[in-house]
Amino acid sequence: MADDPATEILDATYHALCEYGYANLTLQDIAAETDKSKGSIHYYYGSKDELFISFLDELYERFTDRVGTHNGDTPYEQLEGLLQELLTSDADSSLRPFRTAMLELTAQAPYNSTLQKRITDFDEFLFEQLRAILAAGVDTGEFDDSITPADDAEYLATTIIGAHTRHVAIDHSSDQLYNMMTIYIEQQLLADKQPEVAQ
Amino acid sequence: MADDPATEILDATYHALCEYGYANLTLQDIAAETDKSKGSIHYYYGSKDELFISFLDELYERFTDRVGTHNGDTPYEQLEGLLQELLTSDADSSLRPFRTAMLELTAQAPYNSTLQKRITDFDEFLFEQLRAILAAGVDTGEFDDSITPADDAEYLATTIIGAHTRHVAIDHSSDQLYNMMTIYIEQQLLADKQPEVAQ
Repeated sequence: MADDPATEILDATYHALCEYGYANLTLQDIAAETDKSKGSIHYYYGSKDELFISFLDELYERFTDRVGTHNGDTPYEQLEGLLQELLTSDADSSLRPFRTAMLELTAQAPYNSTLQKRITDFDEFLFEQLRAILAAGVDTGEFDDSITPADDAEYLATTIIGAHTRHVAIDHSSDQLYNMMTIYIEQQLLADKQPEVAQ
Repeated sequence: MADDPATEILDATYHALCEYGYANLTLQDIAAETDKSKGSIHYYYGSKDELFISFLDELYERFTDRVGTHNGDTPYEQLEGLLQELLTSDADSSLRPFRTAMLELTAQAPYNSTLQKRITDFDEFLFEQLRAILAAGVDTGEFDDSITPADDAEYLATTIIGAHTRHVAIDHSSDQLYNMMTIYIEQQLLADKQPEVAQ
């Protein structure tokens, strides 16, 4: 999987993070996932903080690839696809340890400005993807031209982040929420609104 | 403020938590906020974990008092009041350190089942207040009788939790979100829907 030592260390960080969580993670735990010593990890990354910043940079690349790829022929289909990707992936149980560790990193952000900058980048990227899809849909006439894409993107982004927090913290499934967001999009955002039916 | 030693220790925990955060907090930090020794804190609470469970139980009492008191003459007014209480209180800067510490506790919940039980209690109480207000509004005819109170309560609760996460992690204000949620309630939940206007 990893061709160079730095990438191997980041892969090992991912596995160790999912296994132990962030708070108690040591460079020793990460070294144990590789054929390297703790000392050689120090050679590449001076501290746990420095390693995690590189790790988050790598994750950000993967996140932007995944969330920035809009599958679907129209903005509405792209929005549905993105919500499905971000919400119904709960069923993928391998994702929960990772999201758990990400919530820990998010909770540490207020104490560490470099970390906070990275967490903000993730948030802004998600917001911007949502905003761009909504704006494109207004342009094509698929979404109602009375909506303000930035406002609705803000609303959607906040709800997605809340769903991830609840998924991790109290093991709450996002399936019902995904259904509600679909109804919201149909009734509030689409230009050709669906008839209101009992939810 | 504190009449008995246990209450004094819980008050000190609140102040120390806001100052240092959860991850790095020691019983010594808490003792420093009182006229007690670390040893006498141990006498009342066997461990940091045990102290925090008592602390969360105390907070839960205050939370249920605050969120369970519905100010407003009708369910719609009560819902607006609750959202205002939970979202626009961002402006109260004294709340941010506390919410920051609560997010840390939330992020630790997956690793500690006793803690997770408490965090779940907060979540369920919020959900149930929202559900009860919506159900009451359907009964009085103020809210549309095609809504399913549990589904809309789930949506609102998730968005509120997302707003708190973003407020803490990236210092994002919830003001715009509060406006959007007000529009959502007017257009989706009220029986006598407001005319749609540009947001």
